[in-house]
Amino acid sequence: MTEERYRHEIAHLARVELHTPNPDGTLWFFKDLLGMYETKREGQSVYLRGYEDPYQWSLKVTEGPEARMDHAALRTSSPEALERRIASLREGNLDGAWSDGEFGYGKTYEFDTPDGHKMALLWEVEKYQAPPQLQSKILSRASKKPLQGLPVKRIDHLNLLAREVTPVKESFERHLGMKTHERVVDGDIETGAWMSSSLLSHDVAVMRDARGARGRLHHVAFYYGIQQHTIDAAEMFRDYGIPIEAGPDRHGITQSSFLYVFEPGGNRIELFGDPGFLVLEPDFETRTWTMDQIDTGTAIGGTNLPAETYFTYGTPPIEPIPDIVRR
Amino acid sequence: MTEERYRHEIAHLARVELHTPNPDGTLWFFKDLLGMYETKREGQSVYLRGYEDPYQWSLKVTEGPEARMDHAALRTSSPEALERRIASLREGNLDGAWSDGEFGYGKTYEFDTPDGHKMALLWEVEKYQAPPQLQSKILSRASKKPLQGLPVKRIDHLNLLAREVTPVKESFERHLGMKTHERVVDGDIETGAWMSSSLLSHDVAVMRDARGARGRLHHVAFYYGIQQHTIDAAEMFRDYGIPIEAGPDRHGITQSSFLYVFEPGGNRIELFGDPGFLVLEPDFETRTWTMDQIDTGTAIGGTNLPAETYFTYGTPPIEPIPDIVRR
Amino acid sequence: MTEERYRHEIAHLARVELHTPNPDGTLWFFKDLLGMYETKREGQSVYLRGYEDPYQWSLKVTEGPEARMDHAALRTSSPEALERRIASLREGNLDGAWSDGEFGYGKTYEFDTPDGHKMALLWEVEKYQAPPQLQSKILSRASKKPLQGLPVKRIDHLNLLAREVTPVKESFERHLGMKTHERVVDGDIETGAWMSSSLLSHDVAVMRDARGARGRLHHVAFYYGIQQHTIDAAEMFRDYGIPIEAGPDRHGITQSSFLYVFEPGGNRIELFGDPGFLVLEPDFETRTWTMDQIDTGTAIGGTNLPAETYFTYGTPPIEPIPDIVRR
Amino acid sequence: MTEERYRHEIAHLARVELHTPNPDGTLWFFKDLLGMYETKREGQSVYLRGYEDPYQWSLKVTEGPEARMDHAALRTSSPEALERRIASLREGNLDGAWSDGEFGYGKTYEFDTPDGHKMALLWEVEKYQAPPQLQSKILSRASKKPLQGLPVKRIDHLNLLAREVTPVKESFERHLGMKTHERVVDGDIETGAWMSSSLLSHDVAVMRDARGARGRLHHVAFYYGIQQHTIDAAEMFRDYGIPIEAGPDRHGITQSSFLYVFEPGGNRIELFGDPGFLVLEPDFETRTWTMDQIDTGTAIGGTNLPAETYFTYGTPPIEPIPDIVRR
Repeated sequence: MTEERYRHEIAHLARVELHTPNPDGTLWFFKDLLGMYETKREGQSVYLRGYEDPYQWSLKVTEGPEARMDHAALRTSSPEALERRIASLREGNLDGAWSDGEFGYGKTYEFDTPDGHKMALLWEVEKYQAPPQLQSKILSRASKKPLQGLPVKRIDHLNLLAREVTPVKESFERHLGMKTHERVVDGDIETGAWMSSSLLSHDVAVMRDARGARGRLHHVAFYYGIQQHTIDAAEMFRDYGIPIEAGPDRHGITQSSFLYVFEPGGNRIELFGDPGFLVLEPDFETRTWTMDQIDTGTAIGGTNLPAETYFTYGTPPIEPIPDIVRR
Repeated sequence: MTEERYRHEIAHLARVELHTPNPDGTLWFFKDLLGMYETKREGQSVYLRGYEDPYQWSLKVTEGPEARMDHAALRTSSPEALERRIASLREGNLDGAWSDGEFGYGKTYEFDTPDGHKMALLWEVEKYQAPPQLQSKILSRASKKPLQGLPVKRIDHLNLLAREVTPVKESFERHLGMKTHERVVDGDIETGAWMSSSLLSHDVAVMRDARGARGRLHHVAFYYGIQQHTIDAAEMFRDYGIPIEAGPDRHGITQSSFLYVFEPGGNRIELFGDPGFLVLEPDFETRTWTMDQIDTGTAIGGTNLPAETYFTYGTPPIEPIPDIVRR
Repeated sequence: MTEERYRHEIAHLARVELHTPNPDGTLWFFKDLLGMYETKREGQSVYLRGYEDPYQWSLKVTEGPEARMDHAALRTSSPEALERRIASLREGNLDGAWSDGEFGYGKTYEFDTPDGHKMALLWEVEKYQAPPQLQSKILSRASKKPLQGLPVKRIDHLNLLAREVTPVKESFERHLGMKTHERVVDGDIETGAWMSSSLLSHDVAVMRDARGARGRLHHVAFYYGIQQHTIDAAEMFRDYGIPIEAGPDRHGITQSSFLYVFEPGGNRIELFGDPGFLVLEPDFETRTWTMDQIDTGTAIGGTNLPAETYFTYGTPPIEPIPDIVRR
Repeated sequence: MTEERYRHEIAHLARVELHTPNPDGTLWFFKDLLGMYETKREGQSVYLRGYEDPYQWSLKVTEGPEARMDHAALRTSSPEALERRIASLREGNLDGAWSDGEFGYGKTYEFDTPDGHKMALLWEVEKYQAPPQLQSKILSRASKKPLQGLPVKRIDHLNLLAREVTPVKESFERHLGMKTHERVVDGDIETGAWMSSSLLSHDVAVMRDARGARGRLHHVAFYYGIQQHTIDAAEMFRDYGIPIEAGPDRHGITQSSFLYVFEPGGNRIELFGDPGFLVLEPDFETRTWTMDQIDTGTAIGGTNLPAETYFTYGTPPIEPIPDIVRR
């Protein structure tokens, strides 16, 4: 259990770095279709942000031999919270190390989850300042909504596959102060957990990897804020050749609206329509979904999440890769 | 081919009569969930209308041993059009007969499609006149939107299963003057046709019955006019125990937004979000979908229409009835 | 009264030509913001089409000294209908003349309304054929939805200002076979009429010009098909400096969703969310709105159409031009 | 300035009590139109909750001589936070007192804002437990969405009118640990402030009372979560005789979607479509709107907030009461 006063130490998911064997395709996906702004290009990497992302970048696309998540970084709610979280990680023998020098961010503490995902914590950021022609009249908007594709506002959350869900969940609870709002159990086995340190249903989720692998990515989600835009996005993806895995529909778990696709590099991306259930109760009791309830949990509408990909495919991929991803 | 001047002889689908072995369940579905008004109750039948249906009823629910469509009636665009259509049906040896005395409608010409579906044509109707407390301030609205459930505006269209699509399609084209806007072919076999006499994508569709039966109903559709309402309806159906077959999503064929459910009597009902593509071109060329294009045809989003029900289940049902319908 | 068999002679509004004193601004508006495709550029004119417009162009933008409509053309439902309509116009002494040679269209019959608006009728069109890279997987879609701005699907309707509504309305009824679905009266004076020859609420509307001028344009409307897109468009217009006159909201008259803006040349443009009420009844009685009902008629939501522009400003403009238009 | 570690002490707005001189009308509004569940009736009061409100009630409607807010209560994020906030209030000489015995809540600390609004803080609540027939399959949902009217999910926020905004804002910042996310200034005068202790744009807002009165209510907001539902609600209100003041539209301030109406007792109620901007940055800088930017601040679409009511009418009302409220 987290002490109440450490419940708010993680502010939000700040950034993710994805590797792609198809950088041209991946950049076309994020820039031309999802309207993300490019803020820097260096070596084999391109830095991108949605029009409401507050920092220099939320997504770094790096050429690499296989699709995968390089790392994801959470921003703490204060510099002191960062120190406290690092101290807790060290107490838990989740060793890590400071790094520095990444574009747009200051010193960053890198550590591995018990399942081997590379995560990071940071406080220091460089706020994005729009040049005059990109400034929005809407003052809370970091830059104008671009006229390209169907622009996402910002990064939203991370969903990790793990050989075992429980140790990852517990380390996020114990060391980062996150709260598990919803979970799924299949008999004695915990197969999914949705966690945050705020009233969002989740900044991070962990789901059981049906292939038994460690440290893989299920998906990164980007936020529209309007459910209709996931419907518009599905039409765009359909006509521009991006394979749709499932949706648009609404999960019962978190009540959030979803659309899952595979970007041309092979990583699964979720387009997130609206946040769904906001957890206002400070003492909200974790909801546990059992297998007899899971139909509503996976989708409120008629979607059947495809067993041949949704619970087995992650990045880095394991052979055989489903045909739909290769399209 | 229809002569141009007979292209507008059918105005719209006026009414459908459904049989149900579970009249209480069926009426709860249409009245409590879909907010239809009851306008009359007589014998084993209840007459219902949506709040924008212009006549006394668009749906008659009758208790019967099995779920099925009793008949459907199209209203012609004029009394003369009715006479011309009957003459054409008779020339085509699609014999029929006049009936009269149905609540809210005048004399009606009944005939069978080449596949055995009971259809009717009529001109004479009794317009619904709302009592003062049900009058809407919106003058084109026949009555106030009720405060019950998620009210449908009106009946929209009919989808028939046929052992052979082509003869039914051709009889609607030849004798009713309908135009086929879109069709599906599987090699040499025509497996679906969407037809109307107006700029709606379809008043009537015909699809191949994979069970090889004759004269069955695939679904009757009711109209919301707003796609979000199909999403709202899915949530309602989920929580109130109505089995969802597929959707909400949008068909590529007709570009219309759909949600398919089974009413408690067993008939498939479509909730129709918006009309999708309006056929403004008077010389629109029929679009023909082939099997390599059909994924986009069936759904623009991620929906896979379930093979175990969508292409095989109709009413009256043939054993074995899929579990989902019996729920 | 129109004879029933001539009720369907006009298929739809095919094209409008607008003049603009600010062609760069006007083209930026239609191409960059509204995602229209340019199909030709010749002399002082640029030809544009929305991604579902079926012909070579629906909008011609021509540089000229003042904002105004050059002409609008309706397509008939058959070649014979065109002949019949011309014969009727001639009987009514609404003289006209054939022209030919316009890009993408064949011979065209030009005539003036009793109030002096330049209108045209035509049958011959050149269907737009998308090159391979612009072909959509959705077969009823004439071309892919572009990735630019918030693309409109197609042209929708025309709204004319007239010194006197009734003569214009009557000439459309008598000679074109249109039906007036809704009208507004202020005491003895008819101040608005919404007409079509199909089940659309209107292809053409006429409203009283409060400035007493003749032959002016109120607005041309372009179609989204999704109400949310009018909301998205309002946000885009706000941030990109296009003055919003009113909306998004829904009219009680026609039940259609609207957003009114001024393009940089000064013409009022409507973004049309969804078609609203579809007139399925073939003998629908014209609805007449009186001044005590007009609040609901003008808007179902909270919009007050601004008296200082909505009922007085049209193009060509009359001095003084309201500040909002000049922004 | 609030110390960072006290930034999360207020969880959310738990409940509001409204007085009404027209209890039948007010209850019809909240129960029949907005689908709120009644959980208790006692004396002159009725207790209501939306289907996702987690406690026994979020709204208490009490008969009284004039429309006004009796009090509003915020729930703290822990029992310790409650103690700390009370200590701070006492240090600030904002004296208060404990009360107890209210249905569904434990001991409650009542205090007045510097402008005289009655506020309360509490930790102890009785969670609502749905009886079996009202349990939702969606586990985070406290009860089924009812089939009555257009149901709101829950209470959202409070907007207070104050003779002076700054002292009220500063007391919420200093003693409750709230953060001001956005504010409006008119020259030297602060005319509005939007505050929360979470990533919501606001749990409480304060706006300058143009009538110069103290301690009045501007509005209480209820949450739909879907913008379309504010559009649906506007249609319902229009046809069922509830006066619409403004909207549906979206504020630039907070980016939230709004609809303002007057309930039959005279209190202004906001229907809140979606939360708009979520303040993820822990060091988000307060945005300050000036008068030259305020058009976008008040509405992104075409809405002009009506000066004759929006900035001057609050409850309790001051004569003369605008006609629109009396309708």
